[in-house]
Amino acid sequence: MSLMHRLNTQDADFEARFARVLHWSGETDDAIEQGVQAILADVRSRGDAALLEYTARWDRLHLDHAAALELSSAELRAAFESLGSVQREALQAAAARVRRYHERQLQACGQSWSYRDEDGTLLGQKVTPLDRVGIYVPGGKAAYPSSVLMNAIPAQVAGVGDIVMVVPTPGGEKNPLVLAAAHVAGVHRAFTIGGAQAVAALAYGTATVPRVDKITGPGNAYVASAKKHVFGQVGIDMIAGPSEILVLADGSTPPDWVAMDLFSQAEHDELAQSLLLCPDAAYLDAVAQAMERLLPTLPREAVIRASLQGRGALIQTRSMEEACALSNRVAPEHLEISCADPHRWEPLLRHAGAIFLGAFTSESLGDYCAGPNHVLPTSGTARFSSPLGVMDFQKRSSLIEVSAAAAQVLGPIAATLAYGEGLQAHARAAELRLCHGS
Amino acid sequence: MSLMHRLNTQDADFEARFARVLHWSGETDDAIEQGVQAILADVRSRGDAALLEYTARWDRLHLDHAAALELSSAELRAAFESLGSVQREALQAAAARVRRYHERQLQACGQSWSYRDEDGTLLGQKVTPLDRVGIYVPGGKAAYPSSVLMNAIPAQVAGVGDIVMVVPTPGGEKNPLVLAAAHVAGVHRAFTIGGAQAVAALAYGTATVPRVDKITGPGNAYVASAKKHVFGQVGIDMIAGPSEILVLADGSTPPDWVAMDLFSQAEHDELAQSLLLCPDAAYLDAVAQAMERLLPTLPREAVIRASLQGRGALIQTRSMEEACALSNRVAPEHLEISCADPHRWEPLLRHAGAIFLGAFTSESLGDYCAGPNHVLPTSGTARFSSPLGVMDFQKRSSLIEVSAAAAQVLGPIAATLAYGEGLQAHARAAELRLCHGS
Repeated sequence: MSLMHRLNTQDADFEARFARVLHWSGETDDAIEQGVQAILADVRSRGDAALLEYTARWDRLHLDHAAALELSSAELRAAFESLGSVQREALQAAAARVRRYHERQLQACGQSWSYRDEDGTLLGQKVTPLDRVGIYVPGGKAAYPSSVLMNAIPAQVAGVGDIVMVVPTPGGEKNPLVLAAAHVAGVHRAFTIGGAQAVAALAYGTATVPRVDKITGPGNAYVASAKKHVFGQVGIDMIAGPSEILVLADGSTPPDWVAMDLFSQAEHDELAQSLLLCPDAAYLDAVAQAMERLLPTLPREAVIRASLQGRGALIQTRSMEEACALSNRVAPEHLEISCADPHRWEPLLRHAGAIFLGAFTSESLGDYCAGPNHVLPTSGTARFSSPLGVMDFQKRSSLIEVSAAAAQVLGPIAATLAYGEGLQAHARAAELRLCHGS
Repeated sequence: MSLMHRLNTQDADFEARFARVLHWSGETDDAIEQGVQAILADVRSRGDAALLEYTARWDRLHLDHAAALELSSAELRAAFESLGSVQREALQAAAARVRRYHERQLQACGQSWSYRDEDGTLLGQKVTPLDRVGIYVPGGKAAYPSSVLMNAIPAQVAGVGDIVMVVPTPGGEKNPLVLAAAHVAGVHRAFTIGGAQAVAALAYGTATVPRVDKITGPGNAYVASAKKHVFGQVGIDMIAGPSEILVLADGSTPPDWVAMDLFSQAEHDELAQSLLLCPDAAYLDAVAQAMERLLPTLPREAVIRASLQGRGALIQTRSMEEACALSNRVAPEHLEISCADPHRWEPLLRHAGAIFLGAFTSESLGDYCAGPNHVLPTSGTARFSSPLGVMDFQKRSSLIEVSAAAAQVLGPIAATLAYGEGLQAHARAAELRLCHGS
């Protein structure tokens, strides 16, 4: 059985096969939904008592007092200091690069602005950080310290005063890299809770866990469902689906490199998607051979094989232009332009979470330390959403100061429209300001 | 019975009374939820046929063919031309000012940016407009042409190629101001559909209604529930609650002006909230007297009275500083600083959808024509969300181009962190790029 689907845009059944490869149902499970709603309601009404019960039940962590759920700053620092120097320095170097990028982002699009128009009216937007945010960090099989950096650093750069991390510690087992990352990233408080109960605690607050204004970070189906339910009560980031990579290749990158990039997506989980689009059949063959050769050398071979067989595809296109057009239909989370002249194709690519240009830009460099965020829109949501960033930890307030003179001009316009909508108090509030300013 | 609650921060029961005034349950009704889910599933599977059936049932609009749901551009233009010149010019003047403000917003924070660091690595973000958006416009009792401008113009300024408006026309009755506003604002296509079925049509697409990437605009409980359900499939803007105003007064604004501003919020609906905070008891009395005198002159007296009695309050504070602190707890949608020196207080105000500075800046001027958007976060969500704007109709893609030299520096960092996370393919993808660039 071949490792991946092989498609050709010139085949009569291409559209049907392409649709099958892309198909992913994000439908939530009714049983999960109901379980989550019960947990949310229970934590909301009973607070810490419910939180302790669910933590004992789901994470096998039995504590008498909710205060014991908190990890002290000293414990986070100790975890960092317990690491070897190579890991310590790698964490710090990655954090520094991520911080620098997000500081540029703050400068580029996170600043207050205003102007006065010719009649003296001041208009603008005041940009302020959120007061307090919650960062959900998965425990167990997908405990990623890099995600701590990618969520906490933009919040810190935005100026959030209180960054609260939650991370489940099943059976009491703590991941020292996650704790160390929290130290490096400037997390203010941390609690060993997870699942829907952690989302509830952050959204509603308990005696021990402070209520936050926004919750970000990835999680399993329970966490995703809980975040969707509390949306409105608090802000949330996107609801993440399986991770994806789409590689556009012109045949100039060593096939082993592209093979490993496809693997690095597939190793996340069985539902992850890896697609390679290229006009050159021989190159697709070469990558396929490289994959067959390299796959047995990888510890996560079984996950990779399941992912590639289920959702992977090598797709031969008529041209690079057609490959770009297909990529826009997919709107992939990660998009590698593994080409000799990536800037030729980049302008054609409209929808993607992150665009990696050139053979040296492996997705994994972006995942860890290039600087941009690795929390990206999945499952085609790059059509309408964006990487996590500083702006997700800020909010804007419009500023309006109408001068006395301008009120004379604006008043009749507003009154006309307000009367047209049947809102007479609106109209008269505008009219009361007439003739007073001159 | 007095028109509004009267509170004093020095009273022993202030906190309890303040909490009761602020209380609003955004909980959704289970019956509505289930009805909405059935409609969404039906329109998703049966498309136009279901859309026609629901439109006949809920809007009493019986059509044989889905094509008859579309309003032509000629019909929108004709509606505009049918208006009297005062209304035509008011719509155009408001649109021009709203457009100008959002163009400034595009310049200030909606631009692509990138930089190269010292090792030649390119980092940045590419900002692109959404391809197609849907704008929900309520019909019936709350049909607001100004909302058409406020939703469509930012989309147009962002460069969205296809702006699709939906507006229910109960019994076939079209609101000429709404159609005219669609013409002025540059709406590309319009359909006479509403409710959860319109949200479903926009989210999933039917043979007649194109699938969009994001849905914005206010609606009733069915529309809000439907938007929340399709979130993820498409983008949505915020879920709006009742409208609110909070006025901070130092006693320098004519009491009639403030009274009318409080009315202009209350006239929206019975759940709207109007709050006045002031350290001066005599001024609160003067405003209360002005309200008693002015209220009987307003056609929407009954709605205003119900709103003020249920959710309105005059609150005497110890100081302006305390009033600002209370305002931050409310995080109001509309915040008027009706003071002689509004810029003294503005820096203290951290959470608000829009801040109106000075006595001449009535909220109603901002609602219609000052320029900033009138779609604002409600119910305290200004703690974490922002006015609708150009950025809501754009998305960002990270750009990363790691130079060969930089890959030698970043590779070991990424590999160390990836091995720490048990993601060996990630590590090896980074390592494959080592030694090749030098």
